[in-house]
Amino acid sequence: MPYLTPLQDFRFVLKELAGLDDVLKLPGFEDVTPDVVDAILEENGRFVEQAIVPLNVPGDTRPPVWSDGRVTTTPGYAQGFKDYAAGGWQGLQHPQAWGGQGLPKLVAAAPAENIQAASLAFSLCPMLTDGVIEAILTVGSDEQRRTFVPNLIGGKWTGTMNLTEPQAGSDLAQVATRAVRQDDGTYRLAGQKIFITYGEHDLAENIIHLVLARTPDAPPGVKGISLFIVPKFLVGADGALGPRNDVWCASLEHKLGIHGSPTAVLLYGAGKGEAGEGAVGYLVGELNRGLEYMFIMMNAARYSVGQQGIGVSERAYQHALAYARERVQGRAVEGSTAPVPIARHPDVQRMLLTMKALTEAARAVSYVTAAAHDKGAHHPDPEQRARNRAFYEYMVPIVKGFSTESAVEVASLGIQVHGGMGYIEETGAAQYYRDARILPIYEGTTAIQANDLVSRKTQRDAGATAYAAIAAMRETLRAVEAEASRAAASERDGLRLLRDNLDSAIQAYEAGVEFILEQSAANIRAVYASSVPYLMLAGVVHGGWQMARAVLACRRHLAGGSTDPFHREKQATGLFYAAHILPRALALSVAVRAGGVADACGAAANIA
Amino acid sequence: MPYLTPLQDFRFVLKELAGLDDVLKLPGFEDVTPDVVDAILEENGRFVEQAIVPLNVPGDTRPPVWSDGRVTTTPGYAQGFKDYAAGGWQGLQHPQAWGGQGLPKLVAAAPAENIQAASLAFSLCPMLTDGVIEAILTVGSDEQRRTFVPNLIGGKWTGTMNLTEPQAGSDLAQVATRAVRQDDGTYRLAGQKIFITYGEHDLAENIIHLVLARTPDAPPGVKGISLFIVPKFLVGADGALGPRNDVWCASLEHKLGIHGSPTAVLLYGAGKGEAGEGAVGYLVGELNRGLEYMFIMMNAARYSVGQQGIGVSERAYQHALAYARERVQGRAVEGSTAPVPIARHPDVQRMLLTMKALTEAARAVSYVTAAAHDKGAHHPDPEQRARNRAFYEYMVPIVKGFSTESAVEVASLGIQVHGGMGYIEETGAAQYYRDARILPIYEGTTAIQANDLVSRKTQRDAGATAYAAIAAMRETLRAVEAEASRAAASERDGLRLLRDNLDSAIQAYEAGVEFILEQSAANIRAVYASSVPYLMLAGVVHGGWQMARAVLACRRHLAGGSTDPFHREKQATGLFYAAHILPRALALSVAVRAGGVADACGAAANIA
Repeated sequence: MPYLTPLQDFRFVLKELAGLDDVLKLPGFEDVTPDVVDAILEENGRFVEQAIVPLNVPGDTRPPVWSDGRVTTTPGYAQGFKDYAAGGWQGLQHPQAWGGQGLPKLVAAAPAENIQAASLAFSLCPMLTDGVIEAILTVGSDEQRRTFVPNLIGGKWTGTMNLTEPQAGSDLAQVATRAVRQDDGTYRLAGQKIFITYGEHDLAENIIHLVLARTPDAPPGVKGISLFIVPKFLVGADGALGPRNDVWCASLEHKLGIHGSPTAVLLYGAGKGEAGEGAVGYLVGELNRGLEYMFIMMNAARYSVGQQGIGVSERAYQHALAYARERVQGRAVEGSTAPVPIARHPDVQRMLLTMKALTEAARAVSYVTAAAHDKGAHHPDPEQRARNRAFYEYMVPIVKGFSTESAVEVASLGIQVHGGMGYIEETGAAQYYRDARILPIYEGTTAIQANDLVSRKTQRDAGATAYAAIAAMRETLRAVEAEASRAAASERDGLRLLRDNLDSAIQAYEAGVEFILEQSAANIRAVYASSVPYLMLAGVVHGGWQMARAVLACRRHLAGGSTDPFHREKQATGLFYAAHILPRALALSVAVRAGGVADACGAAANIA
Repeated sequence: MPYLTPLQDFRFVLKELAGLDDVLKLPGFEDVTPDVVDAILEENGRFVEQAIVPLNVPGDTRPPVWSDGRVTTTPGYAQGFKDYAAGGWQGLQHPQAWGGQGLPKLVAAAPAENIQAASLAFSLCPMLTDGVIEAILTVGSDEQRRTFVPNLIGGKWTGTMNLTEPQAGSDLAQVATRAVRQDDGTYRLAGQKIFITYGEHDLAENIIHLVLARTPDAPPGVKGISLFIVPKFLVGADGALGPRNDVWCASLEHKLGIHGSPTAVLLYGAGKGEAGEGAVGYLVGELNRGLEYMFIMMNAARYSVGQQGIGVSERAYQHALAYARERVQGRAVEGSTAPVPIARHPDVQRMLLTMKALTEAARAVSYVTAAAHDKGAHHPDPEQRARNRAFYEYMVPIVKGFSTESAVEVASLGIQVHGGMGYIEETGAAQYYRDARILPIYEGTTAIQANDLVSRKTQRDAGATAYAAIAAMRETLRAVEAEASRAAASERDGLRLLRDNLDSAIQAYEAGVEFILEQSAANIRAVYASSVPYLMLAGVVHGGWQMARAVLACRRHLAGGSTDPFHREKQATGLFYAAHILPRALALSVAVRAGGVADACGAAANIA
């Protein structure tokens, strides 16, 4: 099934909702003009459609093969990664000083989403490598940067994040991998890591593992975890590859989806390397601050996984839309002389618009969040920097949680649109449903995101960031109100519905924030019983806010004489979001505020 | 993963909510005493746990194999079906005169759900066979009954339903399979049928296909479809198997789930049989009434698929609960000296209770519906019969649509509870997610159910059945109110929440019904744009009604001195449903009433 880069929506969201022009005016981005951005988007579209889209199905049907510690990836993946590297795509958001292109996060967002749409399984390798680059640049030594970063940005090497162990999933306090200091200042690591994405493969000549481990005298718990660089092949002072390090892939997992991505069990210190027993590792930053460092990468990785949700949603939507327009079945409910394409049937339209609205809302939220990242890092006004940084921090768990939970729903609807054909693997819709299911889990489950949102992002600043967003939403609401009052009669129903449903959704969100803040330490379980509904509430309402802004922007274009069908279609998608998605805020808000009862039920129902 | 028959909930729902005692008093069920029912449930539990549960994983990992027209099922399936037949389970709800046990639908419901929980893929064969038996008994000739029914009930033969063709999915008007009358009164069929569940297998010596086809001079559309019996092997006058008929399995589908169930492409009239060219078929009932007859089976089959949703939900819930109690990870949010089982974490409890509440609500709704079937067929008072029949008809699309959409959600939550382990196939949680996804599709998609609910079940009687249910719900609401006012202070929060949320859910449902009724023929697209949200609204509120009744029943037992933990746990599940599931009615009702805007969006967004 062909996939086409949604260039028009990329441009619209960047410019009309995320404030691309303002971001490009920030100090440090002088060279990035709107023309450059356009050229990047177009070139990315061409590259992705030609080189990456064709890898999606083979990755699913011919997954990587493990044999005696070596992993052979899906045919075509190696060439795809070579092309990816040659195109300079790995360096998009990394500093020019290290071989990257130094683009704002906002500009890098669309190409990143696009490659994830093209092949989720393939895109994981570059995504993880991004995280490793960012971590080494942020907390590595100059020597570590020089040794590893250029080859990672250049796509000669790839990177991995090694957190999970069999007994340490979400709870990293349980990490048990050992790191023992040697006389030369290096460490020797021993232990087992699981769920390591692209932990072993044949796409690149070296793999740079970032590994959480514990030194013998480290304090227990998360305060005794350090971060180490462990390359698959040691790197000489001249940059040449040296002996094979003592890190080995014991097996690959047999997963529900993202089959093309090798998920490795890695053994450190099995005693088989060419450099002696124990995997040689280099401490990153200071001892016992590993978790803190990992969180630097994690915020970026969580944002990226949110984008994966948007990408797979877009892909599933395009697939379902194409089928629905082609498949002829049944008469129109309003009457027709012959069977019609199923895209004419009201419920198929409902499903397709739900898919489209969720996808575009999540995209808008994520790009607005990326813009806040850029302003938070580069705005000359410190007050603006702080405010944007706080908004970015607040939004990351929402981007991750909402986009990925939505992706599961969207992919499931994609199957439903296909009817019985959707259940046949060859149709392709089922792959998105299987692939998407990992997204609310890895890089922190939705519950982990929600805990972060509740505690560090809402309670810590007494709701200041959330309330500031709510105030901004009310400005949009007033603009919708004004627009509804001056609209032609034929358009008034839709705009009034938008106004009413946005209004009650904002109130529902506000009530949710209040509940989270009012709960005292004595009611901590009630708050956490409500945390995921609160995250989803925030996601639904932030999505609705951005879609309302999109409706207003489209109406400005239409009033100004635009004949671009995009503006009319986008407006309709925004109104549909108001009709069918925004009302979810009512239900979620009631559930949030029932946190105390819900928690009491858990105990009384003898769940634990 | 072991699966245990939820015997206690079966008994509770049968007795306290579905009125088992009243059903057993109906004429015709004199021999079925409460003790007999108990014995059946217990024996069914033993049989299912020993013989069927072990077939679930092998069916997934070692699916049936096609070779040159023959299909070899998963190892163990043939023995499982033999045991199933020997136990008399196929005959549970069929008349004693034909070798069955003549049980009420209500009593047969729990064993049927239980086998579906044990193995969805296996249970499809008996389920389809049930439909064939019911159709032949209802509209077949005496000779057809004598020839086919005893061996179907006895488990010597199995049955299939052949509706779908490549160009005729939900739209049976497009059926093109030809049936030409022969001089001896039989017909010869030619055509291709797809998605035929257990269309070919090695579980039984013969397969009785019920086939929709068109005679040469039949009128076009659905009014020209007739129903035929086409046995795989012709049956002689003495009942012995005769020549191989001209119906052949061309291939099996490669599906997302229910791998153990062979989904066949069947070719009729390929010219390879031992009985000449064209598959020999026998007309059932009258010419051109095939669709009407198929609907007889379909109502039963739709009800059964709803039960499959409940079964797979129960299975996924038990799987997730067992893992959550065993997996130790993270400290308790309220503080703990050591890591705790994840079942202690509030969000894991939220997920598990959502799974449990949706499962038990769907079960209660489906058993109450089965009781209405029995009263509709057997009650001595014609007015009662008519009222119960109308309620049964109204509820069937809800049982099918709501239970199966819920099953997809429940199975998805089951993966989420497992975290990363849920994504590994060997864990087993992913199978339910894959298996469940067919349920909202086959035997009529959720949209097909919703269209039925809107037109034939709501508009046709001007909402009488829906409003009668709403009136009954308000009686329950008053009882909850009374209970809340006399409850101890510690229990008041939960009961008041139940009262408030049930109250607003009933209002939301009522508003939805009103919208469906108010829309004139001119607004027909608006109604159908709202049909699935209306079905889900009805499901959520009927589920909440039954869970509220369950809470009241539990409180009666507890007030009467019950120390059975089941009553306290069930009450908690009911209150959780009120806190987290019932509020969805608010969102769904707003979406239903936005039907006009939603439909306009479909056109403006250029979906079709």
